[in-house]
Amino acid sequence: MDKIRVGLVGITGYTGMELARLLCGHPSMRLVMGCSRSESGRLLGDFYPFLRHLPGSDVVITVYNAKEIAKQCDVVFLAVPHGKAMVMAGELTDLGIKVVDLSADFRIHDADVYEKWYKVTHTRKDLLPKAVFGLPELYEEQIKKAQLVANPGCYPTSAILGLAPALSSGIVSGQDIVIDSKSGTSGAGRKAQVTSLFCEVHDSFKAYGLAKHRHTPEIEQELSLLAGTPLTVSFNPHLVPMGRGILSTIYTKLACTMSLDEIWQAYADFYKDKPFVRVLPKGELPETRNVRGSLFCDIGLVTDERTGRLIIVSAIDNICRGASGQALSNANLMFGLPQAAGVNQAPILP
Amino acid sequence: MDKIRVGLVGITGYTGMELARLLCGHPSMRLVMGCSRSESGRLLGDFYPFLRHLPGSDVVITVYNAKEIAKQCDVVFLAVPHGKAMVMAGELTDLGIKVVDLSADFRIHDADVYEKWYKVTHTRKDLLPKAVFGLPELYEEQIKKAQLVANPGCYPTSAILGLAPALSSGIVSGQDIVIDSKSGTSGAGRKAQVTSLFCEVHDSFKAYGLAKHRHTPEIEQELSLLAGTPLTVSFNPHLVPMGRGILSTIYTKLACTMSLDEIWQAYADFYKDKPFVRVLPKGELPETRNVRGSLFCDIGLVTDERTGRLIIVSAIDNICRGASGQALSNANLMFGLPQAAGVNQAPILP
Amino acid sequence: MDKIRVGLVGITGYTGMELARLLCGHPSMRLVMGCSRSESGRLLGDFYPFLRHLPGSDVVITVYNAKEIAKQCDVVFLAVPHGKAMVMAGELTDLGIKVVDLSADFRIHDADVYEKWYKVTHTRKDLLPKAVFGLPELYEEQIKKAQLVANPGCYPTSAILGLAPALSSGIVSGQDIVIDSKSGTSGAGRKAQVTSLFCEVHDSFKAYGLAKHRHTPEIEQELSLLAGTPLTVSFNPHLVPMGRGILSTIYTKLACTMSLDEIWQAYADFYKDKPFVRVLPKGELPETRNVRGSLFCDIGLVTDERTGRLIIVSAIDNICRGASGQALSNANLMFGLPQAAGVNQAPILP
Amino acid sequence: MDKIRVGLVGITGYTGMELARLLCGHPSMRLVMGCSRSESGRLLGDFYPFLRHLPGSDVVITVYNAKEIAKQCDVVFLAVPHGKAMVMAGELTDLGIKVVDLSADFRIHDADVYEKWYKVTHTRKDLLPKAVFGLPELYEEQIKKAQLVANPGCYPTSAILGLAPALSSGIVSGQDIVIDSKSGTSGAGRKAQVTSLFCEVHDSFKAYGLAKHRHTPEIEQELSLLAGTPLTVSFNPHLVPMGRGILSTIYTKLACTMSLDEIWQAYADFYKDKPFVRVLPKGELPETRNVRGSLFCDIGLVTDERTGRLIIVSAIDNICRGASGQALSNANLMFGLPQAAGVNQAPILP
Repeated sequence: MDKIRVGLVGITGYTGMELARLLCGHPSMRLVMGCSRSESGRLLGDFYPFLRHLPGSDVVITVYNAKEIAKQCDVVFLAVPHGKAMVMAGELTDLGIKVVDLSADFRIHDADVYEKWYKVTHTRKDLLPKAVFGLPELYEEQIKKAQLVANPGCYPTSAILGLAPALSSGIVSGQDIVIDSKSGTSGAGRKAQVTSLFCEVHDSFKAYGLAKHRHTPEIEQELSLLAGTPLTVSFNPHLVPMGRGILSTIYTKLACTMSLDEIWQAYADFYKDKPFVRVLPKGELPETRNVRGSLFCDIGLVTDERTGRLIIVSAIDNICRGASGQALSNANLMFGLPQAAGVNQAPILP
Repeated sequence: MDKIRVGLVGITGYTGMELARLLCGHPSMRLVMGCSRSESGRLLGDFYPFLRHLPGSDVVITVYNAKEIAKQCDVVFLAVPHGKAMVMAGELTDLGIKVVDLSADFRIHDADVYEKWYKVTHTRKDLLPKAVFGLPELYEEQIKKAQLVANPGCYPTSAILGLAPALSSGIVSGQDIVIDSKSGTSGAGRKAQVTSLFCEVHDSFKAYGLAKHRHTPEIEQELSLLAGTPLTVSFNPHLVPMGRGILSTIYTKLACTMSLDEIWQAYADFYKDKPFVRVLPKGELPETRNVRGSLFCDIGLVTDERTGRLIIVSAIDNICRGASGQALSNANLMFGLPQAAGVNQAPILP
Repeated sequence: MDKIRVGLVGITGYTGMELARLLCGHPSMRLVMGCSRSESGRLLGDFYPFLRHLPGSDVVITVYNAKEIAKQCDVVFLAVPHGKAMVMAGELTDLGIKVVDLSADFRIHDADVYEKWYKVTHTRKDLLPKAVFGLPELYEEQIKKAQLVANPGCYPTSAILGLAPALSSGIVSGQDIVIDSKSGTSGAGRKAQVTSLFCEVHDSFKAYGLAKHRHTPEIEQELSLLAGTPLTVSFNPHLVPMGRGILSTIYTKLACTMSLDEIWQAYADFYKDKPFVRVLPKGELPETRNVRGSLFCDIGLVTDERTGRLIIVSAIDNICRGASGQALSNANLMFGLPQAAGVNQAPILP
Repeated sequence: MDKIRVGLVGITGYTGMELARLLCGHPSMRLVMGCSRSESGRLLGDFYPFLRHLPGSDVVITVYNAKEIAKQCDVVFLAVPHGKAMVMAGELTDLGIKVVDLSADFRIHDADVYEKWYKVTHTRKDLLPKAVFGLPELYEEQIKKAQLVANPGCYPTSAILGLAPALSSGIVSGQDIVIDSKSGTSGAGRKAQVTSLFCEVHDSFKAYGLAKHRHTPEIEQELSLLAGTPLTVSFNPHLVPMGRGILSTIYTKLACTMSLDEIWQAYADFYKDKPFVRVLPKGELPETRNVRGSLFCDIGLVTDERTGRLIIVSAIDNICRGASGQALSNANLMFGLPQAAGVNQAPILP
């Protein structure tokens, strides 16, 4: 069978790089087009030296052109900034192409909320009802039928997967949830900026964007749907001197009298048929290295009787599960392939 | 004037190493004795190659002997495990020596609470009323008169300094406080254990000891004293792939209608004459590198109107401010020296 | 077809961990046995949390027993210390099992040389003539027919691949070769020792074992064979604060008047049909991250007219190419499988 | 006595930052002026948050103006790019100010050599004979009388100190010297560039500028003076994922029959009265962390009988000893102060 032809717009960032890595080993897809204005004309293998001798390395980088892509590709991944993505996604879906958008442009159902947090006008509101939020554990059936998938943000993926069983079954209160998230530096992107230099990040730790990070509305949208009632959460990100990984420590108040055993079972049941969520044995806590390079989300559960809390710890790889791996997984579902195709590698450590 | 003669019991760990470093440059103290059973007989400069050519490097390591120390030293720092420390502190104070104990043995006023969390019997309860909790910003006058100072834990130092102004003036509620702390790996000590290996820690992030870390009662004791009422807090530590530093993100609920400007001013007033606490300008957040190697505690303040919270971020160097530097600062006060003597270096970065 | 049944003796180190990782995705092999005295009785997935939900995680760790292994396995990887390995390799080959030995026991053809550098008596000298040095680029045909493969050391793999084209064709002199190698910390193993602690390794750099590292005789043996004359080299390792990777900078003297273009072509020709050696375009130098997690060896070439030198830089992943990935590749060849089976993943970065 | 007034031109880089750090604690100097076009008008303590509450933090950053500086300062440190520095150094020395230039502009005595390696025209050749190469161990007396000191490069400092005793006494041959140097990332400066991003540097290792780095002529100039004959060396730098530190492994050929004991003694004698060079006991090798934040240069010596070599390993802090600390040390000498004033801190680790 011919392989599904994949286009990738935006190759200079880490999510583009990760898609190129994963597509190398995909049994049913192949990268045929890579777009970047600044690197146009070069071989992808020259821009990504790690890719040499591997499938995709001989792709010649071109400038984005909707019609050209529509001719050559079956599906396109958009790894471009928000604002830009909505235009491209519009053009490409109009031309009948399937699109997985890694930006935030189609994640938030309410355009007003989007415009308020992102400070841009949404020019393709018509597509919002068609776009599916690409979290396979929650929306697998919708993703299978979607033409446009809004790939979730990295922090929201960790927070939503961590809270979904507890909120959907009323184990915890929707009030007073605090999500304290810690991300590796790849989350800051591949832009040349002083604050991302090795010597500025290494051997240090800091918080940023407290109480105002743009992933907040996306988290609240999905948690509200799970809880069946509008929620407001306190979401607060931090920067870790590591490459990949997000660990979210989620503080909730118990709304039931369930024991830790029972809560653990509820989590296990919720994720029963979901191969990429691992509810850790009681007493174990996740470490980001155990999910590095993979689609896994590891979840640890702790109850604190002194304060009446359930503390949920979830760990993902921010670039793989939190972006490109999840995007590929969504594309698999859109084409009727197994979710795991090309993204079932074991985590790599040490 | 003759320099104050310093003894150091426990040289093989990072707090001992840091004391040796700081004593090198102290204008009025000198290290005359270093004790360790396992390294006895070696030159301190051979055990600590960084110390060669510097004051203290020619000290011959000896086995601890209370009478010998009493003869040769004016003050002794105990950098030994809890349990062991209470015995030595007892012997040395009985012999009239001043002691700064870096262990937890004399931090908790209530021996029952101590025994419950540390699972050991306290054999020198008689000293508890005499021991002063060595946080200079809160207890400077008592420290000046103390013979035995219980040097605070690293996490408690960051948490208490972060919350003191808010709790003591009723800015925030004492209910529902969550302290999410992140520590560099030096906090795990210098023991040979797999979990502290470079390849296990590096490029990863994890939580540990959630809801049950032994620093909890120490934090609650001091916060309760500040609030004037018994408090229960949720304290949760994490391990960062960096050497030094603790950053605590503290989630509180506002109990007043003060603006961020007013809250900031209350913090600035509280720490007005305290040179080693820096309340950062509004909009700035601390980074652990900005306090590396120093006694500074940097505090950032954020209000979140959406959730009615004050988020306090505090950063310290866990070995310097959180242990040895603070210990030296306490010893300064005990001898009538300026608090800053020998510990007023600028932070070192990058 | 039934999968080839794999046994792994020694699971507690990083090479065992890497074999478990790679076997997860192998199309024709499956891990059926994992041996460790200390962890016996546990599930492999409990000892390796990263492995949960993946093939091999349900293997119950057992104590090594030659007959039991011979019954259940078609091939065994020995990830145990030298000395121990020769005994097991002897028992298992006597029982007709194929063995890939990751230790040094069968790498050195001359037992006297082995005993001099390793300070142990070789008890299975009878097997030395049968053992094949498992560097596929040099010995592919012999490996295919071998029952016992001596998997090369990590440093030797980088040095030999870097020098093979130059020495075998007389481009450089065999005299005065200096190999300055730098390894990630995983090379120090997973033993609990102070010198491998995060806080001892991180943010520092050091040399070790200068002029006396045990990989020296293995390097000299293979370089001598390539040059056709006995060579003595200066091999000197260093420790890098990173997890995986070896980069060797090899200083040679030009023995010809070839231009860099011609030398480059000689390298390209030498590795023409070898998919896992990438001779980088002139002007490019390798970085260890570009080979991380893969079997690739990247080689960069620089000529220095001022000093009449050819400087060769080679980079590998020390655990994958330098140990477990190469071992798996050798096993593939021993069973008539493609060399790349299960080890053709793209490098993972950032 | 009034403190010596210090000006610092170029504050945005790591060498400027390090000078600000060290000046904080200087007993006889104080920073009164800091120049930067881009940051003009800000408080130095706002640009360097680590500096708040410390001497120098209240300096208002200004645009460089030679006459203004001449009025307000006794000595000026130039932490600006080469080319720019020669103009400023000219203006300031013409105005009678003492200058320590951290750039390469006055390090190389032969203007032709300078122009060939740096590809710029030297516009102040008249100053070359007056400029003193600021390596205190070799040129202390000249530095004391100098008005203009050319502060050595970081790599040259490590290489020259490592080789000086051996070359000046004929222990090793001047032929075939290979210097394999490894530097922390602060050496790449504080420019916003992709290649210095955390995610590009971290967990990887690479060589760069092999055989053509601009520090080569500076090294050769000084080694030739020491050997008394023109030398050509092979100098090759590498990038280590750490902040500070340079370790140089220097491969030489023995030109004598001295034992390691005798060679060690020759080194000890050479550096007898030099407090900041530590010749390590035989069998010990330097680690960059042991000199972090200090002026120390640690030297380890290994003889290799198999290859007839002396291998010298030297370690420095590239920013402190390799730049700003050495600059301050030179300024001390220029004003008749002890070399160690303000730069005698113990190294900081872990």
